[in-house]
Amino acid sequence: MPDRLGPPRDTPLFERITLIGLGLIGSSIARAARHLKLAGTLVAADASPEVTARVRELGLADIATTDAAAAVSGADLVILCVPVGAYGAVAEAIAPQLKSGAIVSDVGSVKGAAFAQLAPHIPAGVHLVPAHPVAGTEHSGPDAGFATLFIDRWSILTPPEDADPAAVNAVRSFWRALGSNVEVMTAQHHDLVLAITSHVPHLIAYNIVGTAADLEEVTQSEVIKFSAGGFRDFTRIAASDPTMWRDVFLNNKEAVLEMLGRFNEDLAALQRAIRWGDGQALFDLFTRTRAIRRNIIAVGQETAEPDFGRRRGGDGDGQ
Amino acid sequence: MPDRLGPPRDTPLFERITLIGLGLIGSSIARAARHLKLAGTLVAADASPEVTARVRELGLADIATTDAAAAVSGADLVILCVPVGAYGAVAEAIAPQLKSGAIVSDVGSVKGAAFAQLAPHIPAGVHLVPAHPVAGTEHSGPDAGFATLFIDRWSILTPPEDADPAAVNAVRSFWRALGSNVEVMTAQHHDLVLAITSHVPHLIAYNIVGTAADLEEVTQSEVIKFSAGGFRDFTRIAASDPTMWRDVFLNNKEAVLEMLGRFNEDLAALQRAIRWGDGQALFDLFTRTRAIRRNIIAVGQETAEPDFGRRRGGDGDGQ
Ligand SMILES: NC(=O)c1ccc[n+]([C@@H]2O[C@H](COP(=O)([O-])OP(=O)(O)OC[C@H]3O[C@@H](n4cnc5c(N)ncnc54)[C@H](OP(=O)(O)O)[C@@H]3O)[C@@H](O)[C@H]2O)c1
Ligand SMILES: NC(=O)c1ccc[n+]([C@@H]2O[C@H](COP(=O)([O-])OP(=O)(O)OC[C@H]3O[C@@H](n4cnc5c(N)ncnc54)[C@H](OP(=O)(O)O)[C@@H]3O)[C@@H](O)[C@H]2O)c1
Repeated sequence: MPDRLGPPRDTPLFERITLIGLGLIGSSIARAARHLKLAGTLVAADASPEVTARVRELGLADIATTDAAAAVSGADLVILCVPVGAYGAVAEAIAPQLKSGAIVSDVGSVKGAAFAQLAPHIPAGVHLVPAHPVAGTEHSGPDAGFATLFIDRWSILTPPEDADPAAVNAVRSFWRALGSNVEVMTAQHHDLVLAITSHVPHLIAYNIVGTAADLEEVTQSEVIKFSAGGFRDFTRIAASDPTMWRDVFLNNKEAVLEMLGRFNEDLAALQRAIRWGDGQALFDLFTRTRAIRRNIIAVGQETAEPDFGRRRGGDGDGQ
Repeated sequence: MPDRLGPPRDTPLFERITLIGLGLIGSSIARAARHLKLAGTLVAADASPEVTARVRELGLADIATTDAAAAVSGADLVILCVPVGAYGAVAEAIAPQLKSGAIVSDVGSVKGAAFAQLAPHIPAGVHLVPAHPVAGTEHSGPDAGFATLFIDRWSILTPPEDADPAAVNAVRSFWRALGSNVEVMTAQHHDLVLAITSHVPHLIAYNIVGTAADLEEVTQSEVIKFSAGGFRDFTRIAASDPTMWRDVFLNNKEAVLEMLGRFNEDLAALQRAIRWGDGQALFDLFTRTRAIRRNIIAVGQETAEPDFGRRRGGDGDGQ
């Protein structure tokens, strides 16, 4: 996996880019866009004065302000990087200041609801091209971001059917410049795909960590000590930002419940196989699932190192 | 986390150690024991001639054979490192050759069934001290092992109530020499603790990867491409050895079904919270679960690096 951005551009992709919300995703975009010189002027807006102060300290943007409306004035590209639950309020605030011909995009993990909350506020002559970079970590805030986060990951664009092709292309170029592959699909299909590849995995990770915390027969200290048996992998996901994930589940209810229904049916069958000692059924499933990981590694979406490379072998083994 | 073994010992801990099964765990023990000179003579037995040939090539033991019975003859410590389903057959085969005063131990992930399958074959005068190192990766076989696997992990000993204290201490010293912390508990409690910290996590990982593979609305290629949203973490666990894990579920049925019952109850409540849009319930759970990861990192059972350190930030972010 390449882990470097290319050299800075000679001419910016956009004269003025405004990022709203400078957390993990927003600050990662800022770092990469600044390094690559994608914007003539890079403007950062965040509701929190602590965040804007930190953005100034880190030198992540040319201008940092708590006033989102002022921040979008004159911008060619505006990207919302706030939790999906804040979209309506932000869109309402910035709408009057959006210039004609501007592109409004976002990075939200849910796309049907993103569109529904943004579209009513977008003035005529402004292009709405929602996007979702499928990349992240369990950390939040402006210090958690890094410029290489999007390299070789996928960004999914979900433009409405009548979107301006030039605006879609501009957003595509932006994400390709950050190192991402780009795919276009409907918001509805995005929400179904992400329900199984991201939302339900997060839900069951949060759930099992909660179950383990509530046990009486097994102490918390035991759960923590003996977590290397598999449990600790789930705790990484279950350490993700509560506000962001609350908003994901509230805003992708149908697809999540649909996929959760499938998960539950399959789990009931597995439970039955254990109860009745059906070793063959267990063995067959456990064999089938290995292939998927091999493919994920083959296409470069995962490290091939055992145990995610958490601990490298070698030292002291005398070979 | 220290990632090095200490210097070799001047005098071995045991005159003769025999390992049966030279896969991930057996070959990791062999590498560490050889480096540390824990055995005067290290003997390796594996049912598979390919494995014994590879053990010879890698120089992992002084003697490598497919004949487990011959291999245990004269051994002071015998450690079974085969899937739990093979315990009965192996114990029956080696029993006549075990010398009086020998210690028989194992590394199986299930301890009640391990004892039940081994105990009937153990001759009088031989000490049975089952153990389970809570450490591993998703890979198998003699090439997957590494000497530092057990450093700072926990090994759980589950001696029967009437076990010889000197034999228990000898096994404790062995695991401490490999860098592990050691805890003693009943086999029954072990099986309950591991059901929640390892077995159920594996089951739900296998399950969701299976669910994703069977969808019609979402293609396999989409599942693979967009796996960085969380799903790929589960595929690591779901790539673990099918034989080993079939045997775990067949042999820890009760505790797994008990913990799975709790998991299902909690998941039903979460499902209801999503259906009814109860954002506060979601937010509360998602906040509570973060603390557990912080503690796992604090006690050194996990790396503090974001995303398991899969990809390090820094390059190209200009800071
Ligand atoms: N984390 C991931 O893995 C990931 C991956 C892909 C996409 N996303 C999407 O990216 C978006 C941001 O996630 P993140 O992980 O970057 O979150 P984050 O680190 O928590 O950052 C969000 C930032 O937005 C600010 N904010 C909240 N409400 C605001 C408002 N009304 N106006 C202006 N700023 C506001 C927050 O300030 P306060 O701290 O003061 O609230 C915070 O600085 C979400 O929509 C999420 O779905 C996340
Ligand atoms: N993997 C983990 O993360 C982990 C962690 C802690 C404990 N454990 C426990 O460690 C034990 C071994 O697991 P592993 O991951 O090391 O498995 P592995 O890599 O598959 O190795 C098992 C080895 O045992 C051999 N074997 C199988 N049946 C045998 C028999 N009847 N006689 C002699 N050799 C036989 C296998 O040969 P073939 O290849 O020819 O079958 C293989 O070489 C299991 O009981 C497991 O529960 C595993």
